Amino acid sequence: MPKLIHLNGFTQCSICHHSKGQWKNPVDGSSAGYRDLKHWIGIAQTLERGCFDALFFADVHGTYDVYQNSRDAAVRHAVQFPGNDPTLLISALAQATQHLGFACTYSTTYFQPYITAKTFSTLDHLSNGRIAWNVVTSYLRDACENLGLGEMPPHDDRYDQADEYMEVVYKLWEHSWEEDAIVRDLENDIHTDPRKVHTIDHVGPNYQVPGPHMCEPSPQRTPVLFQAGQSPRGSDFAAKHAEAQFIIYPTVETCRAAVDAFRDKVRAAGRDPDHVKIFAGLSFVVADTDEAATQKMNQFRQYASPDGALALFSGWTGIDLSVYAPNQHIANVKSEAIQHAASYFTTVDPDRDWTVGEISEFLSVASILPKIIGGPETVADEIERWVDEAGIDGINVVPVTQPTGFTEFVDLVVPELQRRGRARTAYAGETLREHLFGQGQKRLLPDHVAHQTLPPWKRKSSTNKAAE
Amino acid sequence: MPKLIHLNGFTQCSICHHSKGQWKNPVDGSSAGYRDLKHWIGIAQTLERGCFDALFFADVHGTYDVYQNSRDAAVRHAVQFPGNDPTLLISALAQATQHLGFACTYSTTYFQPYITAKTFSTLDHLSNGRIAWNVVTSYLRDACENLGLGEMPPHDDRYDQADEYMEVVYKLWEHSWEEDAIVRDLENDIHTDPRKVHTIDHVGPNYQVPGPHMCEPSPQRTPVLFQAGQSPRGSDFAAKHAEAQFIIYPTVETCRAAVDAFRDKVRAAGRDPDHVKIFAGLSFVVADTDEAATQKMNQFRQYASPDGALALFSGWTGIDLSVYAPNQHIANVKSEAIQHAASYFTTVDPDRDWTVGEISEFLSVASILPKIIGGPETVADEIERWVDEAGIDGINVVPVTQPTGFTEFVDLVVPELQRRGRARTAYAGETLREHLFGQGQKRLLPDHVAHQTLPPWKRKSSTNKAAE
Repeated sequence: MPKLIHLNGFTQCSICHHSKGQWKNPVDGSSAGYRDLKHWIGIAQTLERGCFDALFFADVHGTYDVYQNSRDAAVRHAVQFPGNDPTLLISALAQATQHLGFACTYSTTYFQPYITAKTFSTLDHLSNGRIAWNVVTSYLRDACENLGLGEMPPHDDRYDQADEYMEVVYKLWEHSWEEDAIVRDLENDIHTDPRKVHTIDHVGPNYQVPGPHMCEPSPQRTPVLFQAGQSPRGSDFAAKHAEAQFIIYPTVETCRAAVDAFRDKVRAAGRDPDHVKIFAGLSFVVADTDEAATQKMNQFRQYASPDGALALFSGWTGIDLSVYAPNQHIANVKSEAIQHAASYFTTVDPDRDWTVGEISEFLSVASILPKIIGGPETVADEIERWVDEAGIDGINVVPVTQPTGFTEFVDLVVPELQRRGRARTAYAGETLREHLFGQGQKRLLPDHVAHQTLPPWKRKSSTNKAAE
Repeated sequence: MPKLIHLNGFTQCSICHHSKGQWKNPVDGSSAGYRDLKHWIGIAQTLERGCFDALFFADVHGTYDVYQNSRDAAVRHAVQFPGNDPTLLISALAQATQHLGFACTYSTTYFQPYITAKTFSTLDHLSNGRIAWNVVTSYLRDACENLGLGEMPPHDDRYDQADEYMEVVYKLWEHSWEEDAIVRDLENDIHTDPRKVHTIDHVGPNYQVPGPHMCEPSPQRTPVLFQAGQSPRGSDFAAKHAEAQFIIYPTVETCRAAVDAFRDKVRAAGRDPDHVKIFAGLSFVVADTDEAATQKMNQFRQYASPDGALALFSGWTGIDLSVYAPNQHIANVKSEAIQHAASYFTTVDPDRDWTVGEISEFLSVASILPKIIGGPETVADEIERWVDEAGIDGINVVPVTQPTGFTEFVDLVVPELQRRGRARTAYAGETLREHLFGQGQKRLLPDHVAHQTLPPWKRKSSTNKAAE
């Protein structure tokens, strides 16, 4: 039986997430819709109709100001700015759906672990176990300033701190409340048994958190853990903590190599490599026929704002591409950072001698994401090729316009995948973790590292048992 | 024409908010309901049916551990523990209602102002201008520890820091984005005019926040500002910042004195004293007749958990009442703190020589709140007396059981108040601020201090104008 392909919708509570300029396209509703519940409820219900696993929200807390050494291009082209907080949308979306999961990006650099634990426990309760946390350590310089953290800590230090952060939230989610702590004992007037609610007494280099956790155990306890780190340190972190990994690679071949290396890391971390579901980000231009899809792509190009796309790319990479002329061949630029960034494009097309202008053109629709353009069969073929040849588990579907891009995918591509037995036709379990790992798997799998981070009371109790 | 009485429902995303033990009462649904969207949607729709101004959520981030020098009583009797985050409920409630406002407690001690600004701007967008922020500086010792803040800063220092905090959020909400910054200029490819989105460049003793604000202006820009400080420093803060003040006093007479003093403070702060709406917290036991209400109160007493009520009271006051025998007369205890707390009860009944046991009995239903018990006419009489004699603007309705306490109030008391012309029969404006200050008043009133906290770019611009 062919492997089921998991599907997430990828977006942000902002305008034209990855395709700057599409707010001018009459079929895009994100410019006003991003701050309107009806817009988001429509998208969530569409994805649930397509039996998607989850709607996945990116988030940032600052502006992209590397390009032209200014935030002007980012403001002008609505580059993830303005942006609202996605966690605050979830209860309305959970109420409007029954099965769809929701993944929210939340930064270990900006929020105290005690607050993060309460946030996701609340969301898991309100959604009946349909929440995921996309763990990020964040990368925008001015976001750190806005949050009173001064200079951003170095990349690897952020991950070291994040490792301890995860230890704290695991203790709160998994070990503070025993499963049967709420007893509702009418006769003895005991709502909650105090002997079954424990402090965690975490003391580490970055965090001191006594606990106990404010929230009773939610359906999933720990939210499904997404991670998107592709750096060596980032993928170590993901191999240890993630239950789902979101990656972006330019080709099936580069993706395959990265997936193999990552699964090895998961295995080395003592986990079953199938216990991290890998989602590749792909962008789609879908229509009834291949020709109509090509025409649609040409329309998208007309509405694109290349300067906005460059502002986004420059913010990600830290490279200000505005200092180069459009006809500058990037192979000739003597800069390690640029050669590193350029390797992405030379992978896309090794025969081309890429110029800054050509990069700008490539990025203008769906930024760095691979773009799959075609009618339902062509697109389904490409998806199957990505999944089977790269060895991934699913796709993060990135639309060019919103909500239309999601609607077209669900109406045209999902039925074709379902006909081929590659997409879900109905939900089995209730929680998001069950969508990913099968019915009954509501909680972290047994080989997850959270089960090893025991707080003092659990260690003591096991010692006592051993002594008996 | 008699003055319209504003009404809020007061609650918390927790179990038996002010009436410990009622989870045993079959008519109380909060023990499982507090973590269920349907429970909250039902309450919100009930309050909207009663044309309430808002549903008001308390929140805490720690446990009550003063009583018996332990958190055991608080855990056992579900004393605001477990508790979920109320801000995460709002989008579902906003979607299920059209007019009702929502007030969320959020602490200046635990969240960075940049995050708070994004949180409330998002909620104001999603609710179409129906959000309020109950500004608190927080008081639970172990919450500070859990959030990595170490020892809690002294009471007055927390308010000094909060003053600067408010300055930061005003700059973000009121002065970072010009009203017409989003231009959607198709011809020139400008979504947002960068010249109309400003950094705030705040530099102060506690906060350095460059900005700009992440969110475009929401319907109310600044959320409606609630405050509940009754200490001298707390009411100074409220007189400066609040648009609505939540107070609790034992009698109409003590309330009147406090209201007069507070309105003087508002006047001294250069504001129209009517520009802060004052809500007194009152608890209600309502039935078809006075007799039935008295019977209901007796039932409530049967379900009460006095130890839980004492754990709550001891947490608020910092006084561990467990060290005294129930028959101890508090007048004889030589402790300034206890005499201060005791003055509340001697005001309730000056002729009684209160014992610890009697205080426990008084607190066991609806804690320190004045309790109004009766049929619709008796209750409406008492509400009118409170409003007219104490000179307040509205009531924070605190039910003993939930949702039943809200439903009974709306079905029995609201129609009686409407017959007397004292309660709204339909909503006029769209935003919460309009519910409080009249149709058209969507934004902070002109005499609010936020209009004086100009960021550098606004100061410069006015200087330039003067120089022209």
